[in-house]
Amino acid sequence: MPNSTQQFASDNYAGICPEAWAAMAAANVGHVPAYGEDGWTARASDAFRELFRTNCDVFFAFNGTAANSLALASLCQSYHSVICSSTAHVETDECGAPEFFSNGSKLLVAATKSGKLTAEAVRTLAASRSDIHFPKPRAVTITQPTETGQVYSIDEIQALSATCRDLGLRLHMDGARFANACAALGCEPADISWKAGVDVLCFGGTKNGMAVGEAVLYFDNSLAEGFDYRCKQAGQLASKMRFLAAPWVEMLSSGAWLRNAAHANACARRLADQVSGLRGCELMFPVDANSVFIRAPEQSLQALRQRGWRFYTFIGGGARFMFAWDSDPVRVDALASDLRAILGTKADPMSINMP
Amino acid sequence: MPNSTQQFASDNYAGICPEAWAAMAAANVGHVPAYGEDGWTARASDAFRELFRTNCDVFFAFNGTAANSLALASLCQSYHSVICSSTAHVETDECGAPEFFSNGSKLLVAATKSGKLTAEAVRTLAASRSDIHFPKPRAVTITQPTETGQVYSIDEIQALSATCRDLGLRLHMDGARFANACAALGCEPADISWKAGVDVLCFGGTKNGMAVGEAVLYFDNSLAEGFDYRCKQAGQLASKMRFLAAPWVEMLSSGAWLRNAAHANACARRLADQVSGLRGCELMFPVDANSVFIRAPEQSLQALRQRGWRFYTFIGGGARFMFAWDSDPVRVDALASDLRAILGTKADPMSINMP
Amino acid sequence: MPNSTQQFASDNYAGICPEAWAAMAAANVGHVPAYGEDGWTARASDAFRELFRTNCDVFFAFNGTAANSLALASLCQSYHSVICSSTAHVETDECGAPEFFSNGSKLLVAATKSGKLTAEAVRTLAASRSDIHFPKPRAVTITQPTETGQVYSIDEIQALSATCRDLGLRLHMDGARFANACAALGCEPADISWKAGVDVLCFGGTKNGMAVGEAVLYFDNSLAEGFDYRCKQAGQLASKMRFLAAPWVEMLSSGAWLRNAAHANACARRLADQVSGLRGCELMFPVDANSVFIRAPEQSLQALRQRGWRFYTFIGGGARFMFAWDSDPVRVDALASDLRAILGTKADPMSINMP
Amino acid sequence: MPNSTQQFASDNYAGICPEAWAAMAAANVGHVPAYGEDGWTARASDAFRELFRTNCDVFFAFNGTAANSLALASLCQSYHSVICSSTAHVETDECGAPEFFSNGSKLLVAATKSGKLTAEAVRTLAASRSDIHFPKPRAVTITQPTETGQVYSIDEIQALSATCRDLGLRLHMDGARFANACAALGCEPADISWKAGVDVLCFGGTKNGMAVGEAVLYFDNSLAEGFDYRCKQAGQLASKMRFLAAPWVEMLSSGAWLRNAAHANACARRLADQVSGLRGCELMFPVDANSVFIRAPEQSLQALRQRGWRFYTFIGGGARFMFAWDSDPVRVDALASDLRAILGTKADPMSINMP
Repeated sequence: MPNSTQQFASDNYAGICPEAWAAMAAANVGHVPAYGEDGWTARASDAFRELFRTNCDVFFAFNGTAANSLALASLCQSYHSVICSSTAHVETDECGAPEFFSNGSKLLVAATKSGKLTAEAVRTLAASRSDIHFPKPRAVTITQPTETGQVYSIDEIQALSATCRDLGLRLHMDGARFANACAALGCEPADISWKAGVDVLCFGGTKNGMAVGEAVLYFDNSLAEGFDYRCKQAGQLASKMRFLAAPWVEMLSSGAWLRNAAHANACARRLADQVSGLRGCELMFPVDANSVFIRAPEQSLQALRQRGWRFYTFIGGGARFMFAWDSDPVRVDALASDLRAILGTKADPMSINMP
Repeated sequence: MPNSTQQFASDNYAGICPEAWAAMAAANVGHVPAYGEDGWTARASDAFRELFRTNCDVFFAFNGTAANSLALASLCQSYHSVICSSTAHVETDECGAPEFFSNGSKLLVAATKSGKLTAEAVRTLAASRSDIHFPKPRAVTITQPTETGQVYSIDEIQALSATCRDLGLRLHMDGARFANACAALGCEPADISWKAGVDVLCFGGTKNGMAVGEAVLYFDNSLAEGFDYRCKQAGQLASKMRFLAAPWVEMLSSGAWLRNAAHANACARRLADQVSGLRGCELMFPVDANSVFIRAPEQSLQALRQRGWRFYTFIGGGARFMFAWDSDPVRVDALASDLRAILGTKADPMSINMP
Repeated sequence: MPNSTQQFASDNYAGICPEAWAAMAAANVGHVPAYGEDGWTARASDAFRELFRTNCDVFFAFNGTAANSLALASLCQSYHSVICSSTAHVETDECGAPEFFSNGSKLLVAATKSGKLTAEAVRTLAASRSDIHFPKPRAVTITQPTETGQVYSIDEIQALSATCRDLGLRLHMDGARFANACAALGCEPADISWKAGVDVLCFGGTKNGMAVGEAVLYFDNSLAEGFDYRCKQAGQLASKMRFLAAPWVEMLSSGAWLRNAAHANACARRLADQVSGLRGCELMFPVDANSVFIRAPEQSLQALRQRGWRFYTFIGGGARFMFAWDSDPVRVDALASDLRAILGTKADPMSINMP
Repeated sequence: MPNSTQQFASDNYAGICPEAWAAMAAANVGHVPAYGEDGWTARASDAFRELFRTNCDVFFAFNGTAANSLALASLCQSYHSVICSSTAHVETDECGAPEFFSNGSKLLVAATKSGKLTAEAVRTLAASRSDIHFPKPRAVTITQPTETGQVYSIDEIQALSATCRDLGLRLHMDGARFANACAALGCEPADISWKAGVDVLCFGGTKNGMAVGEAVLYFDNSLAEGFDYRCKQAGQLASKMRFLAAPWVEMLSSGAWLRNAAHANACARRLADQVSGLRGCELMFPVDANSVFIRAPEQSLQALRQRGWRFYTFIGGGARFMFAWDSDPVRVDALASDLRAILGTKADPMSINMP
């Protein structure tokens, strides 16, 4: 029977990885200045600049809701709008946070296929209105990888950013699982961020194995002006900042950020490989990163739940399985086995053909 | 020479206390539901209800800026105002956070002596205007203990809440150092909160020895309606909530919350006792909790800095020394000794009288 | 050739009707108290209460953007959402005003056919999410008549309000052209407002023949608490309020409000009757009030523009003709004639078949 | 006995002056495009540019609350602050509108004598804090003339703007009675606005004799970017804009704007001259514009009220008399006479000396 500590409902369900934990322990020594005036925060900022090989401005926020919403608010005035996909987390799961932090900037949902924004969709939407009665588009936000587990290629991001530059729009990247995208593409972080035209990146730490905390990276330094005040006013300046910063130092220097992501991606691939041929079971989206969306008959999903598995069905009605830095391959196999058992009672071609 | 890890500039400079750390370690096991749907969060909420002996609604926020601002926003509409003292942290050190979260509620500074609000001051200010051109007072906020290190007595709080009820105002308590007030008064938490008429309390965990996190307690449950959504929208809902909640469980059950506070208070008292008789050195405020404000000639303060001590001088020009759960009494004595040496070079009556 | 002063692009293009003008002249005598403390404002408020036969709270705002947005803001907290149709003016043409005034309340677009909201659509949308990551539905807004020129029947409104009550939602009516709905239905204003379950109505004056000003009527008095402060803070309290209020007094007492609307409706009907049989010309929506939406080949619309007619094509690509209190029937006939000439050159079966 | 239509409680109590009225009548002809796309709006904007002899950007808002608050919001982000005097209307009488429109920008009250801001006071306040915990000063607002009826000289404004430039602050002028300042100084509008370093001016029309409407003039065109959207979103874009714009065309071209102001100023001077020598009666502020503040024993003020006079006593406890474009000198004399009679019963040296 499934162990409740090894479900795949969300990568948020995982705890703190050893490297992040060790860093917190190392940081928990003596007294140090508060509000980011400590050495850990300076080192973490430098580590990001080194990793991205550019002199970006680095800030730390408590969670992704705030990181993304504050970043968008810094790009927009209240009468501006932000173009996103219909599955964008900022649109579907932030309870109006972007509108709240920006004091009213409207999110405009562009037509997309399976949650991946395209340059064409951005251009079409941005061109649809140009009168004063409609909020002026000012930014585009993409999630890398998408909420549907797909990774934007370097070319796709470049095409988006070229369109943005052409239209006077800023490009924001929600990188709640940015590390997974890097692991998937095997590229440098710079390649899918500033080198591809991204203006601001929210680099997720929580889903990558930290307790709390996201980094906001401004590659266009001029856009970062006042962002420290913005964070403070919005309740996102940690007094004991070292505990948000130290984990980043260790995660980045040890390579754990990438290993964690690669492991999670591999688990998703492991599941996908085992179920992709099953009759009555369809992979809803390409499995690029650490999630697998499966479309299957409701009775099959119900049978899966009865075997103790927990999962969400909020996008497109399919079952989402999400893997974390510590997901156990044995449990992945157990899930695949259960899926096969449930779906295969009717139609497992392998067993049919066995003598 | 002073050890930089044992300064008394702020209780924010301290790290995580052993009990909080142990709780985080205990919580860092396996996968658990996110966003507060875990067992630790339930237990922490229950622990607060038990400690306060009432069925209050309990929420967790990342820091005091957010906790206090969200609580005030929940009491007010944008056209309301909040009465506070001129030294209130929400007025002087939150970069406009209360106005931001409430979408414009104005803070009204009542005339006070040394930062302690009185029922009379509230009444006078609330009565000063009643026209539509001025934001209608809707809440009063007091800091317990005050930013000047003074503790409101039960009677003082009751007088304030009686006035609030009379005027249709809600009473909010910024309890960033609430534990220190309890330790100082030797009373039950209930005595200076709901039993004394407080509607909402922000109970500080960070300054009490945690890494991050404050609790917001609604004693009037009707006021808590929608506060969970409010926290989520404002970027204050932690996905891995267990790491905010677990420390509370251990802090409250072990009594560390009170021990930590009592220790910090004792350090302040220890310093105050050693310097209170010194010529050229004046205690600016009664030393009720964990801070000591000293007024001394600027050249004396400068001499203190030259000996390596760091402190703030933002309230009234005096030097603030703030003690934490881990402040070292030996270092307190060293500070007192340096103060005596600096001030006493001119005028130590003891040495003058020695034969 | 069309006279530029008799276009049918918008009912906003019309001036001030004689009754409103006379009232402003009558009010422009001597000195009177400002900010609504004058007799005209009192009389206008009473006139509304008499017209609606109920003791509603009455407020005056400068325009519809503000009236509707403030009313919605008074029903919602920032973390709430408002259900509307995809053609709702608050969604499509207010530049994010509802989100701005409410500090982030999200508009949720319900699936509708031709812009008319149904109880079923409200129920389906409201039931689609109930988790904290999505803004909680708190209000429904309908436009009466709709932006597509359709009038909700009493039954339809009752069905909507019953669903709202069932789901704990407030019902707001954007009545920018409320008078046109009354004229169309031949009913009492009360019948399609409070008697049908509407909580708040924004009754449009500008499109009805006034220079500026809308009335906000709260039928549930408890919801009106603080709305005077809200208007003041949001820049919607006129100092010389008499000039917003006096026109209402005269418009309501003279019956001009209804005559103006009936005339505009009749003009729309006059056009619809003359073009409804034309080949290649389709009425996109039932012509219930003062607008006619025509779908015709783009070359036909272009030909119409070449003859000097101006019109908008923003909803569904069709041409919108909108009639005002002073629209000239002769010009309506001229437009119909031009349409016939353009469309009929190819294919008027009647004339072809005539011997 | 005083005629209620000729009180001097507020210049808001006056109606529409003949020139503004005639312009509205002239504009009330036929159909014209809405939302400022009409000829009147273009001509009014040009008239301002001609009057100020510069290519400023011109916008129209419904009232001063909105004009000033929107202008300040355009200069600030939410985490900025605005320096003002303690008597500034934005601080004392806008119900938190600046905080609302800016989403939280805090007003910082500088120490002033009698409500007139000085360069020194600005510098001192701006220098008082530079840490992230306090909203960063970004703008200075002055009211010309002040709420206490004093006029800033060209030199004083230049000194303020020089300090602003030095500190990176924008200078905003609340010109609710800007015309009165021009009349008082006998200068060109440019002299006390852009030539003296003002970035944005809100030029009041309502108190100058119009029904409704203020103009917002951006002398630094770059600051005006997006202000049209800002107005729209904030409910300040009039659909029938011609009725806000036309009065300006006529007021500016006819010189009525200046005549109206000069007349009001003369009435204030007329009262001041008659009461300035009276025993027990003190002019609280220099009478530069159209208001007179009188400090007198409460029993004298009470006696004045008993004779039917109405006035406010909100600033410093004195009685404020405010004169409008249509104030009747005969009534001014009557007020002066009553004041003399009331105060002179004890101590009118003239009558004492009379045989």
